[in-house]
Amino acid sequence: MTDSISLVEAFKQTRYQIAGNGKRTIQVLKEAFGQVDGQQESDMYGNGEIIEMFQEKMAAYLGKKSAVFFPSGTMAQQIALRIWCDEKGINKVAYHPLSHLEIHEADGLKELHHIETLLLGNVAGLIELADVLNLNQEIGCLLLELPQREIGGQLPEYQTIVEISEYCRAKGIPLHLDGARLFEILPYYQKSAAEVCSLFDSVYISFYKGIGGIAGAILAGDNDFTKQSKVWKRRHGGDLIGLYPYIISADYNFDKRISKMDQYYEDAKELATLFNTCPFIQTIPAVPVSNMFHVHITRPKEQVEAVFKEIYYETGIGFTSYLNEKNQSSVSFEVSVGDQYNSIPKDKLHEGFQLLQGKLK
Amino acid sequence: MTDSISLVEAFKQTRYQIAGNGKRTIQVLKEAFGQVDGQQESDMYGNGEIIEMFQEKMAAYLGKKSAVFFPSGTMAQQIALRIWCDEKGINKVAYHPLSHLEIHEADGLKELHHIETLLLGNVAGLIELADVLNLNQEIGCLLLELPQREIGGQLPEYQTIVEISEYCRAKGIPLHLDGARLFEILPYYQKSAAEVCSLFDSVYISFYKGIGGIAGAILAGDNDFTKQSKVWKRRHGGDLIGLYPYIISADYNFDKRISKMDQYYEDAKELATLFNTCPFIQTIPAVPVSNMFHVHITRPKEQVEAVFKEIYYETGIGFTSYLNEKNQSSVSFEVSVGDQYNSIPKDKLHEGFQLLQGKLK
Repeated sequence: MTDSISLVEAFKQTRYQIAGNGKRTIQVLKEAFGQVDGQQESDMYGNGEIIEMFQEKMAAYLGKKSAVFFPSGTMAQQIALRIWCDEKGINKVAYHPLSHLEIHEADGLKELHHIETLLLGNVAGLIELADVLNLNQEIGCLLLELPQREIGGQLPEYQTIVEISEYCRAKGIPLHLDGARLFEILPYYQKSAAEVCSLFDSVYISFYKGIGGIAGAILAGDNDFTKQSKVWKRRHGGDLIGLYPYIISADYNFDKRISKMDQYYEDAKELATLFNTCPFIQTIPAVPVSNMFHVHITRPKEQVEAVFKEIYYETGIGFTSYLNEKNQSSVSFEVSVGDQYNSIPKDKLHEGFQLLQGKLK
Repeated sequence: MTDSISLVEAFKQTRYQIAGNGKRTIQVLKEAFGQVDGQQESDMYGNGEIIEMFQEKMAAYLGKKSAVFFPSGTMAQQIALRIWCDEKGINKVAYHPLSHLEIHEADGLKELHHIETLLLGNVAGLIELADVLNLNQEIGCLLLELPQREIGGQLPEYQTIVEISEYCRAKGIPLHLDGARLFEILPYYQKSAAEVCSLFDSVYISFYKGIGGIAGAILAGDNDFTKQSKVWKRRHGGDLIGLYPYIISADYNFDKRISKMDQYYEDAKELATLFNTCPFIQTIPAVPVSNMFHVHITRPKEQVEAVFKEIYYETGIGFTSYLNEKNQSSVSFEVSVGDQYNSIPKDKLHEGFQLLQGKLK
């Protein structure tokens, strides 16, 4: 019965999905705009109440002087690195080998900004203080991604970030935070966003991960930095006549979910424990430090797909819509906990994992 | 009474505004989304039904093989020129001295793409065939903007475009159309969009001028061209997880207004005639060839402002929210006719212009 449909189709038909805030449907927009006065005027090319008020709100939240709303993090971060490189007169930046800029942006940083990259740290690990101390080259900026998404959302010790920050300040190396999932790590560090951001010269945050908005990003820093970023935003074609569809949904969903990050973190730890009770499965990190983790299964893709589809069909529990094939005997997928996990009846959830424990052989 | 407020404030308080489709308010979004099924799924990084169907619809309308939706024309056009320059191996393009790329994009083309520009034709006139024939340099692309917005929306003879196109094809020079206001010129040329676009290798169109959407653009051309443009869209940070807020409003307003372009053109001619009956006023063009024209008044800014505010207050007719000061004795502003003109009672409109005829001295 389940052989004929793909994993993604089987997943779409499940009633209970363990990750995320729900489907990305137009309802996300409709909900955010439901209570908004239709007579409110659009922002205009970066000016106007809608964009300025949200930028001020986010600057205050991040403890930075100033913030600029961007349509995307790809645009915001390339621009941040370009500004720092220009300021330092050094066309090279350092970041993790699995940075978003390195693997998901079609080399925009290199092709548009002609900035070279130095890949810092081990591909499967985090950037540590020693990696920074052993830099033997001048760089225009160091980018840290917290959490390091592509390795399951791992985090360094907080003290490590403090020491990297102190070293960079002493050496005059601008330090940029890829905070696509900054909100999601605050419960683990038990720090405010402003405390974390005080260690960085510039910060990017996103509104469609844990926050669950439509799209959009904020880039924050001091006034001179954000002023320059607006010029680059225009050059990139990101200074739209109206960005309000993203701003209003970002603001609405920020208010809706910012207080839920503790819950997502606790839920992620509980969910990872359930996965780790299953044979052939381990999560990375073993104990999550945010709302996310990766699930690694040392079984062939075909087998895992068949087992998952059976469980989806029997229980209505959906684990994932896809499997990355690492090699012939191993697959992985990502889990980011949001609103949906908590709405699953516990008996259903446990039924799903009991089947998973029994069926993976 | 009117001295204390600015022209823009006085304009905002007018009941009847001669130009445009109405205020850029959130109602534009709410209206477009009113009938859309909330369960419809977002586009995902350039894929999915919402974006693909609209791209296909626009490709067909423009008579091109393929089309790609972009958040902005700034992004779309820089990318078009980059693709052609890379293909030709020549890092130079030619366009009008008042091209959007030259004066409104903070030099993105030069700063991001390192493309040099050759300014073609007289600043106050159009690019003519002779300008193209006399090009003494190799260029990667020639961009024509139809209509030429910054000189009042003037157009060359259609035969001129045909001849420029034939020359470029013979010489192997890619020809790109800045068609930000393409819809608006079709009534004058009495051509279909596809007929005009057939003269060009690539075409950009916009959805927030005459069409009245929120923002967004389409770039169209052959399959290889648009495929490359998607890579550059990602590099620019324009490949958002969801562009549907702009796509749905573009589609909705395209269907709503595409058949009104004849009316806007006729209205623009009527409105220009009214302006030209006033002393010290002349429109450029004298007879509009689209929905737009510029109004030039050879009187000092202070005087014109005072007269306009009086008329706004007495009649509720609003001519413009701003005046560009050309010199101490001359100002200008732009008029783009949309839905609002036709809803003004004719007696009110004539009352406004009668006052204008009498008050400018």
